[in-house]
Amino acid sequence: MRRLSRETKSVILLSGGIDSTTTLYLAIKYGYRLSALIFDYNQRHKKELYAAIKIAKLNNINYYIAKMSLPWACSALTKKSIRVPFNRNLSKKDIPSTYVPGRNIIFLSYAVSFAESIRAESIFIGAHAQDSSGYPDCRQDFLEAMERAINLGIVKKGIQIVSPLIDKTKKEIVELGKGLGVPFEYTWSCYLGRQYPCQRCDSCLFRMKAFKSLGLEDPLLQQK
Amino acid sequence: MRRLSRETKSVILLSGGIDSTTTLYLAIKYGYRLSALIFDYNQRHKKELYAAIKIAKLNNINYYIAKMSLPWACSALTKKSIRVPFNRNLSKKDIPSTYVPGRNIIFLSYAVSFAESIRAESIFIGAHAQDSSGYPDCRQDFLEAMERAINLGIVKKGIQIVSPLIDKTKKEIVELGKGLGVPFEYTWSCYLGRQYPCQRCDSCLFRMKAFKSLGLEDPLLQQK
Repeated sequence: MRRLSRETKSVILLSGGIDSTTTLYLAIKYGYRLSALIFDYNQRHKKELYAAIKIAKLNNINYYIAKMSLPWACSALTKKSIRVPFNRNLSKKDIPSTYVPGRNIIFLSYAVSFAESIRAESIFIGAHAQDSSGYPDCRQDFLEAMERAINLGIVKKGIQIVSPLIDKTKKEIVELGKGLGVPFEYTWSCYLGRQYPCQRCDSCLFRMKAFKSLGLEDPLLQQK
Repeated sequence: MRRLSRETKSVILLSGGIDSTTTLYLAIKYGYRLSALIFDYNQRHKKELYAAIKIAKLNNINYYIAKMSLPWACSALTKKSIRVPFNRNLSKKDIPSTYVPGRNIIFLSYAVSFAESIRAESIFIGAHAQDSSGYPDCRQDFLEAMERAINLGIVKKGIQIVSPLIDKTKKEIVELGKGLGVPFEYTWSCYLGRQYPCQRCDSCLFRMKAFKSLGLEDPLLQQK
């Protein structure tokens, strides 16, 4: 984990998925006082918002829902006319149609505005470079450059971007989450956002593979 | 002017004030194909939005209005309960209550999402370090760090942040704008956003001082 110090006020980007929820439980374990930012960017899987709210409420964490419109984004997550790819080869390095241009750049810029306003000293993000469809805004070099930029653009300096999962695989994240007591049954990953996970989109495939490789049942699928 | 190359598709952050409007006229002169981003962040001077739209329409430029909510921002520009300071000593280096935490960080992050989506190669911003109330997100070092960060966070690399006014004073900007034929009567600067400029807020004071030092009348004030 990168540059952690306990009991500081922090902002966490919370999507309601496994990564951000595990990050939240980890931050709580380390004694951070969290406020959550939840993003409504008109995503196809709006259902993840309810998961994020549920997780925040379960942990008595203040949260804001930031609404935004990205009408220009040609992404399968924001335009219903673009198909979510099914059963993709996850080892392929090309960027899939679910990529939303600048998503984490925007999320982090909101987070720094929020963090400076409430005098938080760090921003937690559940980004990890592996098993994240190769999105460039999930990589360590981006996060470090962003941390440097945001601290030049605000009055109060010294806000840290903390990404404790950055080097982990999805398998390691599920394993960590299990140890931390993450209620996986309340998290949501599927890009389609229907009643049940589709089990064919990248997000479902990464999740299923992680649980399977640990010999675990995903409690979300057991609800079916 | 910094690393300009003609006829590339570009995004411009357009507030409807003198700085962004002069930047727009400069970019048009240099042959850029512009799309404008106009921000509705629930600012007190919402009137500037109409100025920005007017300027975009006058120049046949496509524009998007990005709406956002920054409920946490304790700024005189977003909270009516906080007073806009009047007749402030403009040479003082303290940050006034009109500072909106992370504003240009958020604007630029939207701009990069937009720019990557429409395959634009640059983002124009009318930031300048002098005569801008000392806001840290108007400085060259921030803009350079932000350019580096955003290019690490997107797929298509090489988007430039172009800030041709960065080293200019407001006086020099008005002078430049006059030469470019900027219709100052359609621009809006006053933080209060009432029918007529208050002539007491920082933004009015900087504007008045610039016109006065050039021996010019501000056509906006002549309308009164």
